[in-house]
Amino acid sequence: MIDKQICIVGLGLMGGSLAKALTGQVKGLIGVDHHAATRQRALAEGIVDFVTADLSSALRQADMVILATPVRTILRQIAQLPVLCPDGLCVMDLGSTKEAVCRQMEQLPSSFAAIGGHPMCGKESAGYGAADAGLFQGQTFVLSRNGRTTREIETLAIDLINHIGAVPLFMDARDHDKIVAVTSHLPYLLSAMLIHSASEMEDERVWPVSSSGFRDTSRLAGSDPAMMLDILLTNRGAISDVLSKFTADLERISQLLTDKDETSLATWLANSQNGYNVYRNSKNS
Amino acid sequence: MIDKQICIVGLGLMGGSLAKALTGQVKGLIGVDHHAATRQRALAEGIVDFVTADLSSALRQADMVILATPVRTILRQIAQLPVLCPDGLCVMDLGSTKEAVCRQMEQLPSSFAAIGGHPMCGKESAGYGAADAGLFQGQTFVLSRNGRTTREIETLAIDLINHIGAVPLFMDARDHDKIVAVTSHLPYLLSAMLIHSASEMEDERVWPVSSSGFRDTSRLAGSDPAMMLDILLTNRGAISDVLSKFTADLERISQLLTDKDETSLATWLANSQNGYNVYRNSKNS
Repeated sequence: MIDKQICIVGLGLMGGSLAKALTGQVKGLIGVDHHAATRQRALAEGIVDFVTADLSSALRQADMVILATPVRTILRQIAQLPVLCPDGLCVMDLGSTKEAVCRQMEQLPSSFAAIGGHPMCGKESAGYGAADAGLFQGQTFVLSRNGRTTREIETLAIDLINHIGAVPLFMDARDHDKIVAVTSHLPYLLSAMLIHSASEMEDERVWPVSSSGFRDTSRLAGSDPAMMLDILLTNRGAISDVLSKFTADLERISQLLTDKDETSLATWLANSQNGYNVYRNSKNS
Repeated sequence: MIDKQICIVGLGLMGGSLAKALTGQVKGLIGVDHHAATRQRALAEGIVDFVTADLSSALRQADMVILATPVRTILRQIAQLPVLCPDGLCVMDLGSTKEAVCRQMEQLPSSFAAIGGHPMCGKESAGYGAADAGLFQGQTFVLSRNGRTTREIETLAIDLINHIGAVPLFMDARDHDKIVAVTSHLPYLLSAMLIHSASEMEDERVWPVSSSGFRDTSRLAGSDPAMMLDILLTNRGAISDVLSKFTADLERISQLLTDKDETSLATWLANSQNGYNVYRNSKNS
């Protein structure tokens, strides 16, 4: 049991899952969401003790706020906090990019304690309906320290992460953003571009002639566009670097194909499979 | 029950799955594989009635041969058939590209009947151990007619496809290859390049900071390199066209990011999600 009143802002996939995972494990759980249906459902299901659309009234009762909205909304909400809570508060977020969030946290007055958070899990379906108490189980939960991070909020964040079955990993916000540009934002963009490539064929046979490989590789294209827009716009630099390198790789592979360079292609294919096996082994160990 | 002696050449994922799906449904099942362990296992499990490493002896007893080897091996095996079976035979294949295979089938003497086949299913794991009788259930099975296709082999192929629970779809070999360049070969190349992008970071934190999105988008990188090499080399033209278009898309998206063109990005993201929903609905209907 965590002896704190926790306010979760945004009861979508991530915030809703966190609320479900924390139900009964904290002194009190306050939910903030602008969808009336989500508020009613979270309250009726007994997931939260109190629910409102009004951030200000929710924060008056909270010891800690966890922002689970799209990244640019998180930035705006952090900027509102000094006016809404003149006495300060513990602040964490679940945003998918960390550098902009941590910079914004550093603008808070010293009465605030703040830490960036990013659980490495998700689904292509968005909203409270997709929320799942088991979403965090066994998953890495990145924590990014910044100029407002205190020992107290670190301890509290680790306690929360342990309670939901995730594994905390401290990481510099900039390093985090560089890594997720490859492990999360690049896969998303590739999925979306794959869907565009298939749609642009304008051939109705394209869907029947697609199998499980296409299904899995295109799955992320179903992600919430509003969430993705904020991610892309708050990690432009790292994503642009990754896309440049990827384009160069793509041109290299095209050239090997054009040249019918069987030896280089075979080596590249074998390296891909080896790299994939290294990745899978890291997840199984 | 199909009143034919069927010889399946290559008891890997596809050929092994076909053998398992056809066991007890045909007059006789002959397996050809160059791995002794695979031969022993298929025989011990009662999947085939007879097993050998020698194509020539297998074909002497067969009414129909189904080639389930990598595409360039299929091409070589078709070329050997006139010498191995001077009296002709029914020939089908399960290769992932169809134009080269159908062209090779057309070189067979008129005593042969031949049709190109491609079941739209798979797994990233290769080999007899991954074979599964249910693999074809409900999946599209492309059939490509060519100059050696007779009414008799069409009927036989459809009968076989019905027996394994798949759905036949006749398609011109060239059209097939253009479509799978987008629905199958492009996803594979993107998966492989994604693994390269992540590996090249040389940062051990890259794997913990990857979630289910990365897992699914990279899954195809685990595919058998020998099979993939043959696919790439026998569909170079269509794949090159697809890669050129994809590179142009990638550069466009990079430019939108650099320009911080929020409106165009938002439209593009919404279109991606819509396209994904069209695709998913086609699979659910």
